[in-house]
Amino acid sequence: MNSELQFIRALQNRFPVRSPVQVGIGDDGAVVDCSMTDRQVVVIDMLLDGVHFDLKDTTPHLVGRKAMAVNLSDLAAMGCWPTAAFVSLAVPKSLDSADAFLEQVFAGIRELSTHWDVCVAGGDTNTWDGPFVIDVCLTGIPVGQHPVLRSGARPGDVLLVTGPLGGSLNSGRHLTFTPRLELAKWLVQNYDIHAMMDISDGLAIDLHRMMEASETGADVLADAVPIHPDVRSTARNSSLLQALSDGEDFELLLAMSLGDFETLNRDAERSHDFHRIGVVRKERRCQLIDGRGRTTALHVAGWQHEIS
Amino acid sequence: MNSELQFIRALQNRFPVRSPVQVGIGDDGAVVDCSMTDRQVVVIDMLLDGVHFDLKDTTPHLVGRKAMAVNLSDLAAMGCWPTAAFVSLAVPKSLDSADAFLEQVFAGIRELSTHWDVCVAGGDTNTWDGPFVIDVCLTGIPVGQHPVLRSGARPGDVLLVTGPLGGSLNSGRHLTFTPRLELAKWLVQNYDIHAMMDISDGLAIDLHRMMEASETGADVLADAVPIHPDVRSTARNSSLLQALSDGEDFELLLAMSLGDFETLNRDAERSHDFHRIGVVRKERRCQLIDGRGRTTALHVAGWQHEIS
Repeated sequence: MNSELQFIRALQNRFPVRSPVQVGIGDDGAVVDCSMTDRQVVVIDMLLDGVHFDLKDTTPHLVGRKAMAVNLSDLAAMGCWPTAAFVSLAVPKSLDSADAFLEQVFAGIRELSTHWDVCVAGGDTNTWDGPFVIDVCLTGIPVGQHPVLRSGARPGDVLLVTGPLGGSLNSGRHLTFTPRLELAKWLVQNYDIHAMMDISDGLAIDLHRMMEASETGADVLADAVPIHPDVRSTARNSSLLQALSDGEDFELLLAMSLGDFETLNRDAERSHDFHRIGVVRKERRCQLIDGRGRTTALHVAGWQHEIS
Repeated sequence: MNSELQFIRALQNRFPVRSPVQVGIGDDGAVVDCSMTDRQVVVIDMLLDGVHFDLKDTTPHLVGRKAMAVNLSDLAAMGCWPTAAFVSLAVPKSLDSADAFLEQVFAGIRELSTHWDVCVAGGDTNTWDGPFVIDVCLTGIPVGQHPVLRSGARPGDVLLVTGPLGGSLNSGRHLTFTPRLELAKWLVQNYDIHAMMDISDGLAIDLHRMMEASETGADVLADAVPIHPDVRSTARNSSLLQALSDGEDFELLLAMSLGDFETLNRDAERSHDFHRIGVVRKERRCQLIDGRGRTTALHVAGWQHEIS
């Protein structure tokens, strides 16, 4: 049985302070040097046992990893690079060995914090009678001149996604995906990305969100939506529905000018990372166009938390 | 029943973007202008139903308020002023009316965010089968040249607390206290505060934490520890134990030079806000000295979360 003081000392050893963090775990708060930037970006995402993962069939390592990954994906979507992480936990008292459990959770966190050189600089660990909760907050700084928002898509822009969609939850891919940080960095450094976000709740709902924020609409070519091999259905309509609505893909959805897209498309090394799925329209509606040119409304079929 | 999109729109209306926040609720992350500072401080504190409050006898308003207050207290302890807030929630599906519940939680948050002009700039709201969880993260900037840490106490420093201690949980004061932001700001602007922290787990354990971080020890005068009227015991020994170990006081513990303290003590308007409780020693032990000069070890009697 470890006391809180011993636990914090162990975390300090595991996550040593490194730039741009100046003061990490162990004080009332963490101090982050922000002299290299005018703007800091903050993302936060809470994962719950039984909702975003299930400890009955998932390792604590993968849960810690996912909690980092979904937040890194949010930073990628903002065209940012991570600087520091803050981890809040509620750990069930009913666990046989909380020490071993936490060891694994933090090993999953460290897998990604080490890979992207993010300093875990603070947090809060509690025990209680409820199920496991992990809430990760990340700070980051823009890779380019400014963060990339959802609201900058313009009529005529090409819409792209960075990978095939669907089947993530069923296959377990949502626990092992790689956040698109490097790809987003390369994009922002080489092109004027008008709007970007990550696909967490499904392309259908997330596209609506981007178009609403941009006060635009979109035409999506049904045959152009890339379907992930994890989608097991063989019927095209059913596969398409899953690709549009399963969610937890954590690919990027982005809008850029046709001119920029044509340049990107000539880049033999990179063009295969992008799938052109449609075009931004002035008319504020999202529609799906099939191979025969027939249009249907793109329903908001993605997954929404119900706040009832 | 509100959808997530409607819920987010309502939050955007309730918490409009204001400086230094440039992008608030609704994108993948929030953007905070940090051009006015070289250092940003991040604090995070998770509160759990049944641990830090009990919804059976507490209003959702007071829970939202407390979740802000404990984090504001952490920023005060760092000598910082808040800039932005991020609120993650796990809301039980079993609630009769989640809308009304969330309305009250956010009203409690807004009570303090308005008072201190903090922009609620992001977060994450989920529903689940578990009990209520609220995790608030705040960013802040130093009021003075740098944040005040726990680690700067020096032998010979005077130890002060900013108010009487004990009885906070029993009385419900932990739900209604005022974070010492203004007092901390005034202190930092007028004195060289060597070390500061807030008393959340009880003076005994929190003093040990500060002394350990500073690589020093402390002598505390038992008769000088101010006991809160909320401590109902009439026996001095029992009252003192509660003042030392109840926790959730959210007063500040600080170390400053004797010279600075003497100046502070001559300030008739302010001196009543401070209680001199002891002195920092080179020897790395914390001890209590009674009215007859007898010393006993100051036990780490405060409240620690047990990990495992």
